[in-house]
Amino acid sequence: MFLHQRKLQYNARPDAPDPIFAKMLQEPLGGQWGEISVMMTYLFQGWNCRGPAKYRDMIIDIATEEIGHVEMLATMIARLLETSPVEAQEDMAKNSLVGAVMGGARIEDAIVAGMNPQHVIVSGSGSRPTDSIGNPWTSAYTIASGNLLADFRFNVTAESQGRLQVCRLYNMTEDKGVRDMLSFLIARDTMHQNQWLAAIADLEAEGFDETPVPAKFPQELEKGDVAYQFINASDSGESSKGRWAKGASVDGKGQFSVTKIKPLTDDEGMLGQVDPRTYGTPAAPVPAAAAE
Amino acid sequence: MFLHQRKLQYNARPDAPDPIFAKMLQEPLGGQWGEISVMMTYLFQGWNCRGPAKYRDMIIDIATEEIGHVEMLATMIARLLETSPVEAQEDMAKNSLVGAVMGGARIEDAIVAGMNPQHVIVSGSGSRPTDSIGNPWTSAYTIASGNLLADFRFNVTAESQGRLQVCRLYNMTEDKGVRDMLSFLIARDTMHQNQWLAAIADLEAEGFDETPVPAKFPQELEKGDVAYQFINASDSGESSKGRWAKGASVDGKGQFSVTKIKPLTDDEGMLGQVDPRTYGTPAAPVPAAAAE
Amino acid sequence: MFLHQRKLQYNARPDAPDPIFAKMLQEPLGGQWGEISVMMTYLFQGWNCRGPAKYRDMIIDIATEEIGHVEMLATMIARLLETSPVEAQEDMAKNSLVGAVMGGARIEDAIVAGMNPQHVIVSGSGSRPTDSIGNPWTSAYTIASGNLLADFRFNVTAESQGRLQVCRLYNMTEDKGVRDMLSFLIARDTMHQNQWLAAIADLEAEGFDETPVPAKFPQELEKGDVAYQFINASDSGESSKGRWAKGASVDGKGQFSVTKIKPLTDDEGMLGQVDPRTYGTPAAPVPAAAAE
Amino acid sequence: MFLHQRKLQYNARPDAPDPIFAKMLQEPLGGQWGEISVMMTYLFQGWNCRGPAKYRDMIIDIATEEIGHVEMLATMIARLLETSPVEAQEDMAKNSLVGAVMGGARIEDAIVAGMNPQHVIVSGSGSRPTDSIGNPWTSAYTIASGNLLADFRFNVTAESQGRLQVCRLYNMTEDKGVRDMLSFLIARDTMHQNQWLAAIADLEAEGFDETPVPAKFPQELEKGDVAYQFINASDSGESSKGRWAKGASVDGKGQFSVTKIKPLTDDEGMLGQVDPRTYGTPAAPVPAAAAE
Amino acid sequence: MFLHQRKLQYNARPDAPDPIFAKMLQEPLGGQWGEISVMMTYLFQGWNCRGPAKYRDMIIDIATEEIGHVEMLATMIARLLETSPVEAQEDMAKNSLVGAVMGGARIEDAIVAGMNPQHVIVSGSGSRPTDSIGNPWTSAYTIASGNLLADFRFNVTAESQGRLQVCRLYNMTEDKGVRDMLSFLIARDTMHQNQWLAAIADLEAEGFDETPVPAKFPQELEKGDVAYQFINASDSGESSKGRWAKGASVDGKGQFSVTKIKPLTDDEGMLGQVDPRTYGTPAAPVPAAAAE
Amino acid sequence: MFLHQRKLQYNARPDAPDPIFAKMLQEPLGGQWGEISVMMTYLFQGWNCRGPAKYRDMIIDIATEEIGHVEMLATMIARLLETSPVEAQEDMAKNSLVGAVMGGARIEDAIVAGMNPQHVIVSGSGSRPTDSIGNPWTSAYTIASGNLLADFRFNVTAESQGRLQVCRLYNMTEDKGVRDMLSFLIARDTMHQNQWLAAIADLEAEGFDETPVPAKFPQELEKGDVAYQFINASDSGESSKGRWAKGASVDGKGQFSVTKIKPLTDDEGMLGQVDPRTYGTPAAPVPAAAAE
Repeated sequence: MFLHQRKLQYNARPDAPDPIFAKMLQEPLGGQWGEISVMMTYLFQGWNCRGPAKYRDMIIDIATEEIGHVEMLATMIARLLETSPVEAQEDMAKNSLVGAVMGGARIEDAIVAGMNPQHVIVSGSGSRPTDSIGNPWTSAYTIASGNLLADFRFNVTAESQGRLQVCRLYNMTEDKGVRDMLSFLIARDTMHQNQWLAAIADLEAEGFDETPVPAKFPQELEKGDVAYQFINASDSGESSKGRWAKGASVDGKGQFSVTKIKPLTDDEGMLGQVDPRTYGTPAAPVPAAAAE
Repeated sequence: MFLHQRKLQYNARPDAPDPIFAKMLQEPLGGQWGEISVMMTYLFQGWNCRGPAKYRDMIIDIATEEIGHVEMLATMIARLLETSPVEAQEDMAKNSLVGAVMGGARIEDAIVAGMNPQHVIVSGSGSRPTDSIGNPWTSAYTIASGNLLADFRFNVTAESQGRLQVCRLYNMTEDKGVRDMLSFLIARDTMHQNQWLAAIADLEAEGFDETPVPAKFPQELEKGDVAYQFINASDSGESSKGRWAKGASVDGKGQFSVTKIKPLTDDEGMLGQVDPRTYGTPAAPVPAAAAE
Repeated sequence: MFLHQRKLQYNARPDAPDPIFAKMLQEPLGGQWGEISVMMTYLFQGWNCRGPAKYRDMIIDIATEEIGHVEMLATMIARLLETSPVEAQEDMAKNSLVGAVMGGARIEDAIVAGMNPQHVIVSGSGSRPTDSIGNPWTSAYTIASGNLLADFRFNVTAESQGRLQVCRLYNMTEDKGVRDMLSFLIARDTMHQNQWLAAIADLEAEGFDETPVPAKFPQELEKGDVAYQFINASDSGESSKGRWAKGASVDGKGQFSVTKIKPLTDDEGMLGQVDPRTYGTPAAPVPAAAAE
Repeated sequence: MFLHQRKLQYNARPDAPDPIFAKMLQEPLGGQWGEISVMMTYLFQGWNCRGPAKYRDMIIDIATEEIGHVEMLATMIARLLETSPVEAQEDMAKNSLVGAVMGGARIEDAIVAGMNPQHVIVSGSGSRPTDSIGNPWTSAYTIASGNLLADFRFNVTAESQGRLQVCRLYNMTEDKGVRDMLSFLIARDTMHQNQWLAAIADLEAEGFDETPVPAKFPQELEKGDVAYQFINASDSGESSKGRWAKGASVDGKGQFSVTKIKPLTDDEGMLGQVDPRTYGTPAAPVPAAAAE
Repeated sequence: MFLHQRKLQYNARPDAPDPIFAKMLQEPLGGQWGEISVMMTYLFQGWNCRGPAKYRDMIIDIATEEIGHVEMLATMIARLLETSPVEAQEDMAKNSLVGAVMGGARIEDAIVAGMNPQHVIVSGSGSRPTDSIGNPWTSAYTIASGNLLADFRFNVTAESQGRLQVCRLYNMTEDKGVRDMLSFLIARDTMHQNQWLAAIADLEAEGFDETPVPAKFPQELEKGDVAYQFINASDSGESSKGRWAKGASVDGKGQFSVTKIKPLTDDEGMLGQVDPRTYGTPAAPVPAAAAE
Repeated sequence: MFLHQRKLQYNARPDAPDPIFAKMLQEPLGGQWGEISVMMTYLFQGWNCRGPAKYRDMIIDIATEEIGHVEMLATMIARLLETSPVEAQEDMAKNSLVGAVMGGARIEDAIVAGMNPQHVIVSGSGSRPTDSIGNPWTSAYTIASGNLLADFRFNVTAESQGRLQVCRLYNMTEDKGVRDMLSFLIARDTMHQNQWLAAIADLEAEGFDETPVPAKFPQELEKGDVAYQFINASDSGESSKGRWAKGASVDGKGQFSVTKIKPLTDDEGMLGQVDPRTYGTPAAPVPAAAAE
């Protein structure tokens, strides 16, 4: 069960409106690696967790914090939109755009054109649960497999991609208020990368799983001769110069080797025939009488 | 540029048709963590790579192999569908389904109903580029950020989730031909988990990046006092018992601590007013005259 | 900012597992009119609200409660999945499905086939943020326009469609534990329908808006002669027998009338010509020389 | 069955081309609350209607009119695109964009960049069945539940959100031809809001349904003690000051009351264990031998 | 502008309900190649048409007919659903599904499980604007490029894929009422394939366009030496045995030839470096000082 | 199985960066008619092919070539993005956008606003598997029905729509390097249109299928009297002036005729009643007691 407090977790006030940066800031709100994604991912990982309570509670703690991050970004974007787009748009209309194509346009028009039009038409100067180009957020971004090691590895990824995007955005604005909020989110992502890496170590130390995930699958059932082999599929040899091509494997259960790609079977993938009443093209033409 | 060889990389022949397992096997073909996803992810990571050639070539090598895995799964599914669903369906029709609801139905009907109907109607006994419940594959599953450490972490995740799903499917069939192919895919996933972990080690050893990704963002610009703090947002203390709550942080740059969640600002998120001609609800009613 | 308590808001424990009802119960969790939809809709309406605090806080209160409803449904579904699908599936494999199509299949197979396969393969017996046929939840289900009257009308709709679906599901199970939870959700939907209808009355009483929404748009700017006219577009007269066809309009600003549909213009929609270098088909063939 | 007349229902001719407004006008054509949505929603409500003929015919009448509104908007957008984007784009090319970034760019370039590029590349100066940022229209916007009161409530919503968006757009252009068409659409939305409100009154007067929808569900089966209770989930008391918090409920069947949110159960949502061959993380590590 | 007549274009009455066939019949209603797709495609092609009136009117004629086909299929599906799924589902509930997995289940349960659950929960025994596995219809299925030859080729395809699917469905039922309606749709598809092929001939005879579409693009601007060359990219010679590999090209403007695939450039696709503040992985590690 | 060669199939190097053209060039990469679509379509057609080897190999040959076209476009776009967007964006920030709306903005800002923001934030100056407005590529663009004539007709369409779009783009840039690559792609599309038309001729000559597809469906089962009839559904006679309205049908099996649309049935589509526990609106109100 959840409770709400009126105060935000951290500041979310820009120095000045900026409708184009508002568009860009939708990415960490409703993009694939944005705060809605981590909020929903951690909530479902927590609610589906059948592991020890310390993992379950930790996951839900961070999920709960993330709802507050969504709140901060939504608030910041709404404030960045507190200009008067209708007014600017009216100016645009006054200055015929055809005229504009011919010469004589005003720069305001182009700027309004650079906004997300749904920030005016659909949400009336509010934020949207979408990414920076307006794709709706989808729950396909929510990952919860029931296997905590697989999922914690995803979480490290999510915090890496997320921090990367926020760092890029930090360099795309000089608004001090915006940068203040981003510096908070970047710091939390630093913690969260560390947190999930620590949780992985914890999980492995307690014997729940290890590389290759899932380690409980009996390794004698896999085709062992290709389990530690780097397969070169190209006409270059550069790819054999890395750590992945020689020495002990990272899981300590094999030795890396290199081989050229080649078929390990004579099977050319030819298919058999099926019921002619599905009207697929067969190996040889059938007379019409074969049908129904 | 790419070349094709007629022979498959490995066997893809079931002992017997099984249209319901064909439906399930769509998950590792066209699901979020299936072979199309890793094929496309690695292709785009390779083509967008601005790092050293050894990484670029390695990424494209594995991408090229993955195209062959998509081929194997597509072939296997088409072969699992080599029954005669139209015939079975006709039986179903003969045995009125209303009658069935009332009693007297035949089991064949229910089995046909358990197939993916698009395996008959749309693809005519061929595989589909979708997951096990028929959601189309989407390029939102393709991750390529330009930052190799962030992306290699994703790749470890993808190979973990993928191996997990294939291991689950291994336990859901006893068809020896299917299991033979799955044992090959599981082994390759073992290699690929190791490969990406090794590539991460290589990347860090060469000084390209490290935790927190991206490490080149000047850490003094982030709000340091919350960068190593576990924030407890619930009424339980269990979450403070893990590795993430005490000791040196995994990146070696801080010390984990624990704190109760609390607002770090007095900002309650109240918004300002905007142009009345967007007809949003304002803080106080405006007379109609305020409009246009 | 948000806080979490370990206890659920209400019971979410079934009497017995039921993987097929688990599939169906995904609809009120992750379907278009499910709890994720109202949770996200109310959160964004609250965060984008520029109206008085009593509305903003009320919206966020109910949003916060809805996060807890998502939690209850996710928990219930995970518990309904606590059977042993792998085992049943193995039985299915043992009893060749081809054999099944020919006769002799076991009922267990069909039941496993009736499950959502992603409940096994993807989430490992956990709930999924999708609807009853596995479509991912999308933020297109989130409505927040900035105009509270328009949005509260949506909220009444959402609670109506939602309650309707849960009532249907109530009749599709006899599990007492499931019905207990559903009776709680149905009661809350009763309150929420009443709550939003009361909020509409409150908003109108305070003079913020009224029919036709948005009432602040100057009505003299609309084409008044068609503003209260029911237009019959068919060969039947039945549609003129309702309340919408005669008497004072509901907004009290006009009188309903009825008319047969007819064009109010001579415009037949013919288009002009465009740049030949877009290679559209023009009114008359152009010689190739007209191109580039 | 349907018939077509060449003449439009109303004028759809702009004074002058305007490719950026064409982009924005896609919202009422192919957006979530646009004319395609109401056309499809009313068609499916009509075709699925099992209620009296007066409702069914009325719904299909308005659906048929809406097909004509889609036609008007599609025509208007195609005419707004009758500029010469290829020519302008060529100018853009001539004036190197890199040069532009360095200084010296021409305004035409930026304006072309503000268009929807698919209006040139994909539709060759024609309209598209998408919204103002290019998201494809999806049938998830089509609502038809079989329960007319639930659906008519949706229809009121749709006409409210739709009219709101068109009013916003009216203020974003000064083209008299465009405003003429919009004034017609706004007036029809005025009628349609009134029409659906009248239809709701009609439905309730005839005894088909009432609040809480569906009223035929036996209210003694819901958990009555929370059916009229406003639950405050935050640290503010503002939300208790509205009509929804005290007095008789809108349905006349209860009294509103207010309570602080609290768990009504001791259930903490802990889950049971499942088949180890799904490789989920269990409450305690299992030895590998437990697997297959 | 459009008009509606109460009578259907053709019969749409099944002999008996059949909820599983109702699920399958969604494919020609709301699937990629279903009636909604051709209805919307033809409407948009007509409304965007800048060619002669005979094409424009012909396109809108067929579009108008297709709205009536959507109506027939929607009606048929609603009638196929006139069983009592709630009752059957209740039986299912009475016969515990866990019990079912263990033995003793009833066949009715499995049949209900084979239905589309949204046919009960969401649409209350009505049709849905989705395909046979419940994917929402999307306007990405609507093709209208402004070039009639390109689009008429699409229309031939659509009528081919559509007829193929309906023929498959014809063989999957023995319900005489259903087959009667399908025999009408199949015949109309026969006409429509012929119609679009005739329209292509008409368009070419009038000089509007020809192969290669768009023929107005000056062919001397394309790289002519690869314009009629079949490129063999595999280790087999079979693909050179067809009509496409020798003789005059179909457009009469070249001669087919065969060649082995090979790079026509020395470009290995290596990329240059970009701004370090996007934190991509560069060719060589940069010191942190290079950042902001 | 597939192999990779480092060299591209053809040049992919622009004369100069151009981030706005990079956005537009996404259409032939990841749009509906782009190279990913044909690559995936041909791969699945090949893998699902049950026809003679010459077709199967030919399809996979062209599929393999298309992977290389995806590679060329991805490379070109990454190179077009080798400007310094962060720097330009910083300038934008320095010159307050609010100030811009008021006057005094810099053109660089508007240009940056015209880019696809995900080219910076998400992919760090790399290409994306999306179209020109950022919609993710979806496997719904992949067509493989098992019937080669139906599918080859689609392939002709795909190469027509694709060539049309690339020709449009050719006219939208003057960059010689870009035009060089486009002239190669246009030439290959010329070949591929010819190739699929030749393959259709080959297929028909060998007796596999013909118009109407699928020709093996017994034509006496379709409702023959409407199989060659053009149905005029409008108030204009223009549509009867084309080739499709008179003379022998294209398949040589009938004569075109023209008729006015009219119902061929008395069925008005009225539906029967269903279980009241789904709470649909019935023909007459039911007392509450009829429910559960």
